[in-house]
Amino acid sequence: MTSREYKKVIWTALLILLAFIIGVLIGYFSRTIVFQPDSRTKLLDKLNRDGDNSITQKLFDTIDTGQIDSNLRILTGKPRLAGTENNRESGDFVHRQFLQYGLQSEIIEYNVTLSYPDKTADNYVSVIEEDGTVTFKTVAIVEGDEVQPFNAFSPSGNVMGNLVFVNYARETDFHKLKDMNINVSGTIVIAKYGKGFRGNKVNNAYEAGAVGIILYSDPGDYAPSGTNATYPDTVFLPKDGAQRGNIVLNKGDQSTPGYPANEYSYRLREHELNARLPKIPCLPISYSNAYNLLRYKCLLFNGVNDKNRYVMVGNHRDAWVYGSIDPISGTIVMVETARVFGQLLKDGWRPRRSVLFCSWDAEEFGLVGSFEWVEDNSKWLSSQAVAYINVDSAVSGNDTIHLKTVPLLQKVFEDAANKVPDPYGKYNSAYEAWRNHPRFRVYKMGGGSDHVPFLAGLGIPSMYPKYSYLKDIWNSTSTPLYHSRYENYHAFKMIDPELKFAKTMTSIISESIRNLADSRIIPFDIDRYTEYISNGVEELLNHYGQVVGPKMEEWIHRSVNAFHESAARLKSIIAAIHNDNDDPLYARQINDKLLWLERSFLLDEGLPGNSMYKHLLHSPDTANYYGGVSFPGLGGITQCMDIQNTTECHVEIHKHVAKIIQRIFDAAKTLDS
Amino acid sequence: MTSREYKKVIWTALLILLAFIIGVLIGYFSRTIVFQPDSRTKLLDKLNRDGDNSITQKLFDTIDTGQIDSNLRILTGKPRLAGTENNRESGDFVHRQFLQYGLQSEIIEYNVTLSYPDKTADNYVSVIEEDGTVTFKTVAIVEGDEVQPFNAFSPSGNVMGNLVFVNYARETDFHKLKDMNINVSGTIVIAKYGKGFRGNKVNNAYEAGAVGIILYSDPGDYAPSGTNATYPDTVFLPKDGAQRGNIVLNKGDQSTPGYPANEYSYRLREHELNARLPKIPCLPISYSNAYNLLRYKCLLFNGVNDKNRYVMVGNHRDAWVYGSIDPISGTIVMVETARVFGQLLKDGWRPRRSVLFCSWDAEEFGLVGSFEWVEDNSKWLSSQAVAYINVDSAVSGNDTIHLKTVPLLQKVFEDAANKVPDPYGKYNSAYEAWRNHPRFRVYKMGGGSDHVPFLAGLGIPSMYPKYSYLKDIWNSTSTPLYHSRYENYHAFKMIDPELKFAKTMTSIISESIRNLADSRIIPFDIDRYTEYISNGVEELLNHYGQVVGPKMEEWIHRSVNAFHESAARLKSIIAAIHNDNDDPLYARQINDKLLWLERSFLLDEGLPGNSMYKHLLHSPDTANYYGGVSFPGLGGITQCMDIQNTTECHVEIHKHVAKIIQRIFDAAKTLDS
Repeated sequence: MTSREYKKVIWTALLILLAFIIGVLIGYFSRTIVFQPDSRTKLLDKLNRDGDNSITQKLFDTIDTGQIDSNLRILTGKPRLAGTENNRESGDFVHRQFLQYGLQSEIIEYNVTLSYPDKTADNYVSVIEEDGTVTFKTVAIVEGDEVQPFNAFSPSGNVMGNLVFVNYARETDFHKLKDMNINVSGTIVIAKYGKGFRGNKVNNAYEAGAVGIILYSDPGDYAPSGTNATYPDTVFLPKDGAQRGNIVLNKGDQSTPGYPANEYSYRLREHELNARLPKIPCLPISYSNAYNLLRYKCLLFNGVNDKNRYVMVGNHRDAWVYGSIDPISGTIVMVETARVFGQLLKDGWRPRRSVLFCSWDAEEFGLVGSFEWVEDNSKWLSSQAVAYINVDSAVSGNDTIHLKTVPLLQKVFEDAANKVPDPYGKYNSAYEAWRNHPRFRVYKMGGGSDHVPFLAGLGIPSMYPKYSYLKDIWNSTSTPLYHSRYENYHAFKMIDPELKFAKTMTSIISESIRNLADSRIIPFDIDRYTEYISNGVEELLNHYGQVVGPKMEEWIHRSVNAFHESAARLKSIIAAIHNDNDDPLYARQINDKLLWLERSFLLDEGLPGNSMYKHLLHSPDTANYYGGVSFPGLGGITQCMDIQNTTECHVEIHKHVAKIIQRIFDAAKTLDS
Repeated sequence: MTSREYKKVIWTALLILLAFIIGVLIGYFSRTIVFQPDSRTKLLDKLNRDGDNSITQKLFDTIDTGQIDSNLRILTGKPRLAGTENNRESGDFVHRQFLQYGLQSEIIEYNVTLSYPDKTADNYVSVIEEDGTVTFKTVAIVEGDEVQPFNAFSPSGNVMGNLVFVNYARETDFHKLKDMNINVSGTIVIAKYGKGFRGNKVNNAYEAGAVGIILYSDPGDYAPSGTNATYPDTVFLPKDGAQRGNIVLNKGDQSTPGYPANEYSYRLREHELNARLPKIPCLPISYSNAYNLLRYKCLLFNGVNDKNRYVMVGNHRDAWVYGSIDPISGTIVMVETARVFGQLLKDGWRPRRSVLFCSWDAEEFGLVGSFEWVEDNSKWLSSQAVAYINVDSAVSGNDTIHLKTVPLLQKVFEDAANKVPDPYGKYNSAYEAWRNHPRFRVYKMGGGSDHVPFLAGLGIPSMYPKYSYLKDIWNSTSTPLYHSRYENYHAFKMIDPELKFAKTMTSIISESIRNLADSRIIPFDIDRYTEYISNGVEELLNHYGQVVGPKMEEWIHRSVNAFHESAARLKSIIAAIHNDNDDPLYARQINDKLLWLERSFLLDEGLPGNSMYKHLLHSPDTANYYGGVSFPGLGGITQCMDIQNTTECHVEIHKHVAKIIQRIFDAAKTLDS
């Protein structure tokens, strides 16, 4: 072989090698192109992705106060009393809006018993002298379709008796009267509105032996700047204003307790119904027959990964008269929130979980719409609802935020409020303005609105935020015009002329929904819950430590410690998942523990004295339905202790405290299991 | 270029091409080797893999009748009455076995109230003539540690009265006596064991006015081949044999209803306790103090994918005396099952879900161990337990299979029995032998063993299979020696000399666990449930169609149709998932619907007459605790109808039927949501 041939062979060998290497590289990378990213990797990315924070700003940017104002004007344009044609109209309006926003929407009807005054006769109170002459008679101002002042579910009829002033008609007021040897038996009592739910006032009066009760809005509370500075110049109540409202202690449809008010349900017979209703007239009224009730359900869209986990948002739509604050300041916030999400859906965004907007009817008659729907849907809600956000009366004032929340949701609210500008323009965020307000406080849930069947009935974590108090002049959370005919469009615009509070609330609610619906791990704050329970237990032992004894006290501490330890374990698991865990079922398991935590505190049999309230911690106080206390089931027992202090009261405390210990252990086991 | 050179160039080009192609191939497949299977694909494969069928044969091959026999001999070696030292020993034995098999095991103690006869005095019945002379007195044979015959929780004391024979002391028997104008008021009644739970007999006697009741095992039922052909020659009851047993209608610890029997729990005071217990003596006995109760929990292992979903297997361990059939024929099956799974764990296999073996104590005193543990763990069990398999008395006979099951689990049992050889060697499988037996039937769940708190209390689907009946000679499911001192090792070996029925049951239980714990989609049979409900509703309308009226009848049909449609939709979703769905969260969502289906039928407030039984369909019949009926909550109402037929009875039917409709709709919604 010549050297030239030799070179040729080398060249050939090199060429072959080169071809081989190029081939390897092409083969190698062509394979790469075919397989990267494969569909399975994409699937895992989709399942494991965390919430999309960039959506927050898009939500905020979409909010439009022009839309809010237009809805406010339309909805407050007529009285919206539940069961009336005007109210059906407003329901149809909300329904049409939801559809227009590109959302699914559905109407569900229940046949319930409501309560109205006789249209052909006025309710009145008159003063009759000993000789029988009438020296005074009340007159109410009513125009157009407005319903005359009355208290729903009061029995009708005439009662006569001496008049006794009983302050706010609280239990303590009647105690004080008893101590002063003033007997109200057989009398008509007159009491101021405020400092408690009016239904409790009526019940207290009945239990004290009164034959009737008159409720009025005292100018000291409702017109503190004087009776000349009232509506339409200010938001204070004019002298002829009267606050309507229901007085029932059992919520939901009065004639179908425990059933949805469907055709097949068992309806109480007259004597059974009367046994549940208030026993003494609150103002002379008459019953009407059952009316149709509407509820609007709007299935916003289906979540992509955890489709059968639901974040719920709700508010009622019926009003005593025009209801510009209660409920429509909440309705306009909810409707605008729905519009904003509808817009983002159109732009292609989808959250992890499903979101459900609910517009309730007949809340004013005792949470009728929400209760019936929950009775009709209790089982799947129990296993699938992540949280319920109540947006009733979202702008009741303009001074600061008034937040009722379960501890699990407090941080969701705070994080959202921290991303929203301060409507006063003073602080960096709405959160900071609230946090620095002298009135800053977080309230326990209690009763008073449509969160009750979700939270107290099914253990679904709930929050109920609003703007409240009237800046610089007003000390009560409810506005003076509350439930009167003056609570109209004009009154609302005095509180929020530029709709900046309505806009701020819309932003906070929107971002709270996004966080709850889109975060990979449900953003519940377990630390706040352990803190809440520790505080509650301390309070409990301060009151009843003597009664329960050292052995039980030790068990209470053991249960609380077990809960603390389980919470710490789960927290460290959650902290670790972000870094190295790729398994979508693992995240789902953690979320299920979080979902079930709140449910661990339910008592199947209900609280002592009210079987419909099942949540050991977050039910309404049985002694004041509006109130929130650490252990609402002890309300009735406290009375027992205060008045009798017998062995039987001690036994009741022991029984209930044992349930508290059992359920705290249950909560710990739920986090561990 | 010469033609030779030309050829060389072609060859070179071909070589280069070949090298290139080989390179491409090597590159392509080397890349494949590097990337296939990647970790994310492996993860999805792990999450999505279906159950491993090859495990079935390994389970079967590992079963060892030598082990079963050894356990049988040890466990029946002493009387195992709950609360005695002998029973604590057997508990420790099971615990040690579980640990030895490589499983986690835990002992949990509760402090409960049991009931024993006075050790210093015999229980007896004597015949006293009119002149006061005693002409007869019963004597019981008792040896060593055996407890003398008694009925747990009977009040102690002496009663005297005329003796009246009341057949089986069923309600119908007392009705017949009344029709015959025989008044049992003030008498002592004597009744045969059988055809119902003994506690109902005592209660019926009390309600008829009797002051005491004597229960005996009639030779017609318990020694049908004559009193000379009895133990130790046959499994029939000798003339001195007596059946022990509890007579309480409320199950669980009698002194802590609604609480686990922990130190912090509320314990009934004496008058409260007495109000719950039987009112008339059943045999003269005395109470002892509370004893410690043990329960053994064995966390077999954690499932790999759905760790917080539990398949539960349980049996009690206490016996009235030696208990070779009740419960130990079940205990040996459960312990062997645990050993077999332990072996497969050691071999590296892991199922999708977690499995939990439970060995209960004090079942004979009214399901005490299982009830207390469920009261202590109700919340996480509610959300996480997939199924409960009860293996009490798994070989009570040798004639054929006796299956109690909820419809959801029937197919799980059938599929397992179809994979196991026929112990008679006649058919292709145990399933076929059972299916072709003239006594073939599937029983409703009812009460009678430790499944009650799981199924009736929490809605966890349960099955309770056993071999039953004595071949060719015996017509009752319970053996004649039941609850007597003769129910010992020797007696059991007469029924199952080669332990082939124990082995067959071990195989069926093992495979049922594997299927439930390992299948990707929980193998619940929705079709059987829809069929079950359709049949139940038809039965209901046959009885009460007149009372409920056409409107309600229409609603019943509507609810059943809704359930059928929802079931069909879910079935088609499940059918589709095997082919083209790769998303593990999607499968989990389907499994959650299946998990929640049974829970949809729970009533928080419990059935009319027993608040502890919450399942509308699968609770024990309130009229006969052992019995299973379609709508157990109608039991008490049926009595009302039969005896009074008043408006009040009609109202009760209407209320309960409305609940049935509501819950069937709930079940449909759970499947759809």
